Amino acid sequence: MDIATLREKHPDHWMKACAIRALAMDAVQAANSGHPGMPMGMADVATVLFEKHLRFDARNPDWPDRDRFILSAGHGSMLLYALLYLTGSPDMPLEEIRNFRQWHSKTAGHPEYGYAKGIETTTGPLGQGLAASVGFAMAEESLRARFGKKVIDHYTWVIAGDGCLMEGISHEAVGLAGKQKLSRLIVLWDNNNISIDGEISKSSVTDQRARFAAEGWTVLHCDGHDPADIDRAMTEAKKSDRPVLIDCKTHIGFGSPKKQDSASAHGSPLGPDEIKVVREIYGWPHEAFVIPSDLKQAWEAIGSRGASEREAWEARVAQLSDARQAEFKRQLTLEPPKRLAAAIRALKKKVSEEQPKVATRKSSEMVLEVVNSVVPETIGGSADLTGSNNTKTPDLGIFDADNRKGRYVHYGIREHGMAAAMNGMVQHGGVRPYGGTFLCFADYARGSMRLSALMGVPVVYVMTHDSIGLGEDGPTHQPVEHLAICRATPNTWLFRPADTVETAEAWEMALTTKGTPSVMALSRQNLPTVRTTHSTRNLTAQGAYILREATARRQAILMATGSEVEIALKAREMLEAEGIGTRVVSMPCWELFDCQPESYRRKVLPAGPVRVAIEASQRFGWDRWLLGERGRENKAAFIGMERFGASGPAELLYKEFGITAEATVAKVKELLGQ
Amino acid sequence: MDIATLREKHPDHWMKACAIRALAMDAVQAANSGHPGMPMGMADVATVLFEKHLRFDARNPDWPDRDRFILSAGHGSMLLYALLYLTGSPDMPLEEIRNFRQWHSKTAGHPEYGYAKGIETTTGPLGQGLAASVGFAMAEESLRARFGKKVIDHYTWVIAGDGCLMEGISHEAVGLAGKQKLSRLIVLWDNNNISIDGEISKSSVTDQRARFAAEGWTVLHCDGHDPADIDRAMTEAKKSDRPVLIDCKTHIGFGSPKKQDSASAHGSPLGPDEIKVVREIYGWPHEAFVIPSDLKQAWEAIGSRGASEREAWEARVAQLSDARQAEFKRQLTLEPPKRLAAAIRALKKKVSEEQPKVATRKSSEMVLEVVNSVVPETIGGSADLTGSNNTKTPDLGIFDADNRKGRYVHYGIREHGMAAAMNGMVQHGGVRPYGGTFLCFADYARGSMRLSALMGVPVVYVMTHDSIGLGEDGPTHQPVEHLAICRATPNTWLFRPADTVETAEAWEMALTTKGTPSVMALSRQNLPTVRTTHSTRNLTAQGAYILREATARRQAILMATGSEVEIALKAREMLEAEGIGTRVVSMPCWELFDCQPESYRRKVLPAGPVRVAIEASQRFGWDRWLLGERGRENKAAFIGMERFGASGPAELLYKEFGITAEATVAKVKELLGQ
Repeated sequence: MDIATLREKHPDHWMKACAIRALAMDAVQAANSGHPGMPMGMADVATVLFEKHLRFDARNPDWPDRDRFILSAGHGSMLLYALLYLTGSPDMPLEEIRNFRQWHSKTAGHPEYGYAKGIETTTGPLGQGLAASVGFAMAEESLRARFGKKVIDHYTWVIAGDGCLMEGISHEAVGLAGKQKLSRLIVLWDNNNISIDGEISKSSVTDQRARFAAEGWTVLHCDGHDPADIDRAMTEAKKSDRPVLIDCKTHIGFGSPKKQDSASAHGSPLGPDEIKVVREIYGWPHEAFVIPSDLKQAWEAIGSRGASEREAWEARVAQLSDARQAEFKRQLTLEPPKRLAAAIRALKKKVSEEQPKVATRKSSEMVLEVVNSVVPETIGGSADLTGSNNTKTPDLGIFDADNRKGRYVHYGIREHGMAAAMNGMVQHGGVRPYGGTFLCFADYARGSMRLSALMGVPVVYVMTHDSIGLGEDGPTHQPVEHLAICRATPNTWLFRPADTVETAEAWEMALTTKGTPSVMALSRQNLPTVRTTHSTRNLTAQGAYILREATARRQAILMATGSEVEIALKAREMLEAEGIGTRVVSMPCWELFDCQPESYRRKVLPAGPVRVAIEASQRFGWDRWLLGERGRENKAAFIGMERFGASGPAELLYKEFGITAEATVAKVKELLGQ
Repeated sequence: MDIATLREKHPDHWMKACAIRALAMDAVQAANSGHPGMPMGMADVATVLFEKHLRFDARNPDWPDRDRFILSAGHGSMLLYALLYLTGSPDMPLEEIRNFRQWHSKTAGHPEYGYAKGIETTTGPLGQGLAASVGFAMAEESLRARFGKKVIDHYTWVIAGDGCLMEGISHEAVGLAGKQKLSRLIVLWDNNNISIDGEISKSSVTDQRARFAAEGWTVLHCDGHDPADIDRAMTEAKKSDRPVLIDCKTHIGFGSPKKQDSASAHGSPLGPDEIKVVREIYGWPHEAFVIPSDLKQAWEAIGSRGASEREAWEARVAQLSDARQAEFKRQLTLEPPKRLAAAIRALKKKVSEEQPKVATRKSSEMVLEVVNSVVPETIGGSADLTGSNNTKTPDLGIFDADNRKGRYVHYGIREHGMAAAMNGMVQHGGVRPYGGTFLCFADYARGSMRLSALMGVPVVYVMTHDSIGLGEDGPTHQPVEHLAICRATPNTWLFRPADTVETAEAWEMALTTKGTPSVMALSRQNLPTVRTTHSTRNLTAQGAYILREATARRQAILMATGSEVEIALKAREMLEAEGIGTRVVSMPCWELFDCQPESYRRKVLPAGPVRVAIEASQRFGWDRWLLGERGRENKAAFIGMERFGASGPAELLYKEFGITAEATVAKVKELLGQ
């Protein structure tokens, strides 16, 4: 539909949509950076969505049963900001629109989760919003099954562009949603035929409609500038028993004589002259950032359209028992259940006594058996490595179209899709997801793992097979840089527990934080219990602690994590036997140690003794503890990997790569000049 | 087709395929680890491929015009090893089969590039082989266009499983191949309906045939155990003008009563008892690892089937002019052209004199303009950020179905697919690929970037927008951990050049190495030329060097990379003005500095002066240079990022995050106790 017809046939709609377009043009121009083309292209679709379909109450953006609106094409952030401002969201006054892309504004270049309510998830890295939306829809299904339709019953709407759909993560997300028959997920494809390099045909011949149909989706289409046609498609979409793609044919930079349908509309301001021309074409005589009050009121009426629904919802929830209400609230707010601490403590006591020799992936399973029975909001899963990641406990049941109460997800070979879905589940609320793969394949999920950290969502990554200790599968499967990758990423807890006790403590941290994702680096190979004396305190919470004190005069400190703590303990015995007093420090989580008081760090790592760190990984990053924190270059050494691994039996690999108690002893003695 | 029918109707074929199956069972059993189910399932397909279609000469596995065979489902490595052994590949004697998955064997758990000829690329991480094969096929097209059909004219055959097809990278690869109409690419899908967690239906409802058709592929199918039907499909596939998927319906663990069609066939030995039963069912009475000599001869005849074709090819090549032959060989062996060094030198001299103030992404473009005219084997591209990555130079032309001589690829929004394709191009031979995206989106390509390093292929990653210096796009686009990620990865050169001269030097290194991938971290923002005195020597080759010496008595050393070298130089001037002698060390490549002689490192970083490192990134890893190499904790400090970035104008971000000359000066004075 062209502008003349649109203005004539749908004048009210047109002016509403123009308000979005004008704010987008103006804000991008004022910032002198940003992406006007997409909001100008999708304003009609967004207007119909908000006016006719999206269930929301702008003044109560936290309403748990609201529809979720996810702007996967995050560069079009002004579309979202304009909608929040126009509908009257309390977090989005006009001042924020004026401060688009400025330091400390809520209107960052791309939508940042936590900056303003109504930004459901961080987007910008393409495909992430779409993939997270699958998690939103899964969480909705889970909560609807667990708390009933009167409490949770809503849709997840997504705007995605060609960039989102070309990214590999979209394949995983689309496949997962199709398999899971997520009928409450509706994706609005901004089919504008343009990407940054030019026409889509330069890089793609994909028939997106056929592609989505092949994945089990319902596929609809509409003229993305015709409000009646958009409304028809959305109405139909809500009736589908499968996830829905609506192909919305649009024009990027709609109405701009110089920029419409061209890549130049995408990522830079239109310029004052072109904006002036576009204003005339739009019939929009208002100054920059000015929305006439009647139009603002019309938009605010849209914003309060859902108020009565919200009130009805609140009345329904109020009818639940107090306990039920409290439980619903607890799960939504990520409060750990009271029974968790005692359950973890009991397990720790038991294993300190029984001292099993098991792989920490098995330890993790032992913890999950305890956890999953007291934390009903966990949803576990694995990227097709269930038996290897030990992520499934018997009581979970499989989450599937036939069993939405199930709490275990067969994600398929989709690490990236899994990670993104887990982000979405946390952000929807009511779910604490964890998911497994091999640590090496964190590589496949990196994009979403970074977003977990950036957004501060407490997803738990169960990463087994965490070193050359996995043996014969060889270097493609043996992480040597992945511990460093996690440690280098801000706001990420990397736990590498040494035994079942530390694994339990790590899980306790991971399940009680509200703002940090955790990566559990777990061994394939069996490890002895090293925490043989029960401590009610969570020692892993300190990040590092003295596991064994020196008996003879303290001349050496051995630092180690995970499977190498056993080696440190053996080396200590050998050194003590020679009269060299040796302390062993277990360091399951650097990040937590790093934020301990200086006095504690000084106690654990005093100046004086020589220091040797042992980890079946690269040295990269270890200098912080070896040379810093009162360390000295000539009194420190590292035992670990210097290159990629190799295929062979694990014990032999440790020997060949020189990661042994004997090598540690030799290094200590060398540093001591003996 | 069932075994009884197969044995009856195709007895010769059956025994050949059995040889593969038996070796796979036996080797996995001997190693007590590995994946027998896939080779048992795909042996018929592989036998027909090698016997009837694959153009190869087993005794000359380096023949440049051979068909490439890529086992994307790398866990089925014994399929490949068995084929190499049976056909008589010189690198694969029986001893290697017996040593499957052992230390220093050529038969690693997953196929490792470089371990034995015939292993065209490393696979195991799912989807990587499939995605690399797109690069193989692109390289073939390019060389065929450049050197003619008489020199290069072959197919790329791939075996991929459901795991490969579920991974997101497969979407990017399939989309790229479809767009590029790579008619010489034929993918054999091992459609056995099983993944590790069980039946595919547990995690997927994807109609793979429809999916590939939607991407512009030709889709065929066959009974993967009927040699006639397999042959028919392969014959037809070779006639297609588009890439081809052959859906091969197979049974995992074919013939094993306890394991066929079940996930338990996938990843563990069958066990001696089951192997005994299977041998009987197969009619294979031979001892473990024994292949009857007539059968071995039959397989070796298959191996030498292509010998005459190879000889004919050699005769054709010999008819080329000497210069043409030399050029062909040079490109295949990654020898840099002789003119490159002089061209780089001339550019360095010019920019040292003219001292342009440009972003290093622009510097990179200036280098590429010089390089692409003297290095005809470069193929550039970008994941839809051509104008931002500055990767396209005017003379390249677009590589496309209509123009195979084009040397620029519009990869689309497919970072992972691009990286994998580049790996494949190098491994095919005859191409030096480079490809661009934003440094932050290295996350999307991590899986393939790791393989570049592990395989030792000299791909060049052009990663622009390398810090908060990109400004308003905000934290989703601002790398703070990615320098560390690259540095933590073995065998990866991370270059972060400070100006055009260093950028030219970095490119020279990247284009002359034969065994290491390079990551170019390049600025969005303009930077002054800091190398104002021309040096013919490549100083970047040393990794770090003294950029400006102290004038007053040397009390401080400032270390910096890339865009922060400018800040270091400013701080130096301010310090010198106060009488504090200050050396500035530019460190464009840690990895190269790390392998300099101790004496050189000592010269650059002497003990004594205080050290401050400046980098708009995390400190993680910097302690190596601050505290190590004769450094001291109380005399060292870091100026950089402590968390994720923010949206705002770049200059303001630098100020707000405290990455300034003033902050550097203050830190130096604090360390000096002033």
